Amino acid sequence: MEDVLQIGGVDLRRLARAVGTPLLVYDEEALRKRMDQYAAAFRHPQLETQTVYAGKAFLCGAMVRLVDEAGWWLDVVSGGELACALRSGMPPRRILFHGNNKTPAELAAALDAGVGAVVVDNLPECRRLASLARQLCKPAAALLRVNPGVEAHTHQYIVTAHLDSKFGISMARREELYAALAELGASDYLTFLGFHAHIGSQITDPAAFAAEIQQLAILSQEAEQRGYQVPVWDLGGGFAARYTQEDNPPPVEEICRAILDACAGQKAERSLSLKRVLIEPGRSVVGEAGTTVYTVGWLKSTPAREYLFVDGGMADNIRPALYQAQYRCTPVERPTAPPARTYTVAGKCCESGDILIQEAPLPAMKTGELLAVHTTGAYCYSMASNYNGLGRPPVVFARGGKARLVLRREEPEDLLRLECEEGISL
Amino acid sequence: MEDVLQIGGVDLRRLARAVGTPLLVYDEEALRKRMDQYAAAFRHPQLETQTVYAGKAFLCGAMVRLVDEAGWWLDVVSGGELACALRSGMPPRRILFHGNNKTPAELAAALDAGVGAVVVDNLPECRRLASLARQLCKPAAALLRVNPGVEAHTHQYIVTAHLDSKFGISMARREELYAALAELGASDYLTFLGFHAHIGSQITDPAAFAAEIQQLAILSQEAEQRGYQVPVWDLGGGFAARYTQEDNPPPVEEICRAILDACAGQKAERSLSLKRVLIEPGRSVVGEAGTTVYTVGWLKSTPAREYLFVDGGMADNIRPALYQAQYRCTPVERPTAPPARTYTVAGKCCESGDILIQEAPLPAMKTGELLAVHTTGAYCYSMASNYNGLGRPPVVFARGGKARLVLRREEPEDLLRLECEEGISL
Repeated sequence: MEDVLQIGGVDLRRLARAVGTPLLVYDEEALRKRMDQYAAAFRHPQLETQTVYAGKAFLCGAMVRLVDEAGWWLDVVSGGELACALRSGMPPRRILFHGNNKTPAELAAALDAGVGAVVVDNLPECRRLASLARQLCKPAAALLRVNPGVEAHTHQYIVTAHLDSKFGISMARREELYAALAELGASDYLTFLGFHAHIGSQITDPAAFAAEIQQLAILSQEAEQRGYQVPVWDLGGGFAARYTQEDNPPPVEEICRAILDACAGQKAERSLSLKRVLIEPGRSVVGEAGTTVYTVGWLKSTPAREYLFVDGGMADNIRPALYQAQYRCTPVERPTAPPARTYTVAGKCCESGDILIQEAPLPAMKTGELLAVHTTGAYCYSMASNYNGLGRPPVVFARGGKARLVLRREEPEDLLRLECEEGISL
Repeated sequence: MEDVLQIGGVDLRRLARAVGTPLLVYDEEALRKRMDQYAAAFRHPQLETQTVYAGKAFLCGAMVRLVDEAGWWLDVVSGGELACALRSGMPPRRILFHGNNKTPAELAAALDAGVGAVVVDNLPECRRLASLARQLCKPAAALLRVNPGVEAHTHQYIVTAHLDSKFGISMARREELYAALAELGASDYLTFLGFHAHIGSQITDPAAFAAEIQQLAILSQEAEQRGYQVPVWDLGGGFAARYTQEDNPPPVEEICRAILDACAGQKAERSLSLKRVLIEPGRSVVGEAGTTVYTVGWLKSTPAREYLFVDGGMADNIRPALYQAQYRCTPVERPTAPPARTYTVAGKCCESGDILIQEAPLPAMKTGELLAVHTTGAYCYSMASNYNGLGRPPVVFARGGKARLVLRREEPEDLLRLECEEGISL
């Protein structure tokens, strides 16, 4: 008799019976361990360090509390994420506020909360932040986001002066960069901490970060020659998760060591005043810890393929349709059964593109069985929609054989809560 | 002095002041006119006809009421959409229930509500529907979805026996098709009405529908020779909307006439018992009637382009990122100002791919101005997410100079409503 797939010591069949499917379950111990692993690895004798969780990958109260307990800081990218963080007890001083186009209300909320730092995106935002801080009498620390001209994805990276990212001030535009530093420096309420950069996603080559660090070092050396102290670098995120057997992200220890050695090397080589380095893992913290459990619906043979339909799809995981993301899956009730068929795992949305896995090797499956799709912890729930009138799945944290519901299932009544019928005075 | 852009006689600047941005405004008269136009055009002396609105394009209570008032039927594709329709007063007998993988609970809800017809997707679903109808003592009418091997998009269509769509029973699998008909025929509770097919989206060539109709006619003739009456065809949707100047969908009258003439022609030629033809427009009803109004945030020059940032983006309109969909836009406060720049209109999500329009010719824009993105009425709100912690925009129906709020803005507190902390008994 085969074992049933377990996560955090919790039998997924029992869990599915208790809360229904689709459901998203996180291995809480894996989340904690991964954060501890980063925190332990991201240390260096010559530098202060801080790990910052990129909340946009997956955010809810329970996740905020784990981040807080692990001693991490938290990235938020909007007033909505800030509200979630504050309401869940995250100390404001350990929150970074991001965004390429923060609204005035969001900047005011960040100042009002007293976040640890605002990551300022551009020159006019420097001016607006300075003006708001003065108006509200709220001091703030600022990191200035720059575009280092390094773009990295998986095995490749490029360095270019022409990278046309929407984020930050291009390093090719030195005049604007120094105008921004002058603006921050001129404010009595703002403290310039240093530079922020972010070079891509699902990065597996530590040399990409070394290229980023070199660009920041060149800029920092120049800025310091002009009289600006640059004590902090925030190197952003982009750390890879392992979605399929083809993904081989380097161990956290290796990538952290490479990053910090490169920072320390540049600091020494260029006599920089660098004191503190931040990184912002998101996907690599939560991605592999999350698993979506679906119930298998109909199986259908067409002249070209065998479909296996599940009771969720692009509404709870848009990534295959949006990014052609790859996933792997396991039959929950017989996880070690040898593959006998190749299924196309499709969702229930009325849309041809609602395919979760193009080719999934599985035993011959039956309607009513459970199917676990792995590595759905990042950018699935946070990008979920109510397309086709589907509610979001419940989210469960499992640990030591116990399961707790941290986000309840979104029901049809929830989808009607924004309905109203109200004249607008113009 | 220039006019300000108006929709339904409502000044969009005033509207934006009243409800904030981003906001989604529908021209209610355009919605009503378009439905009336279809209803008037989709008539034929030898055939009964019915237009059915594909709710997945955009659904809310106010839209349901317009559909009802216009005398249309309504397509729903899930228990969530069904709940919205019923709660908004749609008569159940005028609802069609769709889906390639309906759950048992959804089928039961459809039977319980007494929907006009269930569009059955496959053989095992025929069996389940028959079994549930018997258990619940609820009779139902059924349309059987077939895959006619016709695939159409914009200017092209193909006819093939090998189309591997996830929807319906392939016409190449006659044995399964007749088993499904036998199953429906054997049930005391189910009435087989006829066939349903759907061939694609954004179709502009009436010949594509003619090809679909020919396939349905061949199948119906064969089925009638085997003793099954086929009084109804539901030809599905796929009618195009005009997103940009490059889109030239034929007039509704032309496409309706072509469809009905082809149906009548096949009926006569093959002596079919066909009595009633349904079509399911969605995008073409609501797409052009919807406009999203954003506030312009920062403007940013990179070495490669000029960015114009807006206070929404892929959270309220995933279509550019998901389908490379094209949109056009207008500066609300000077709609006729000649273009002077080419902007890349980007959203505020922390994601490089959050670009709404790659190249938008506009006058030189300023922070704080309003920008209207057109033809956002279909598949924008219905696919919206809370990515980056962004709430959904309010939805306004404007008509005759008056505006009414039909969906209120989703606030940060709304995003926290699913939070819980509750042990699960396993």
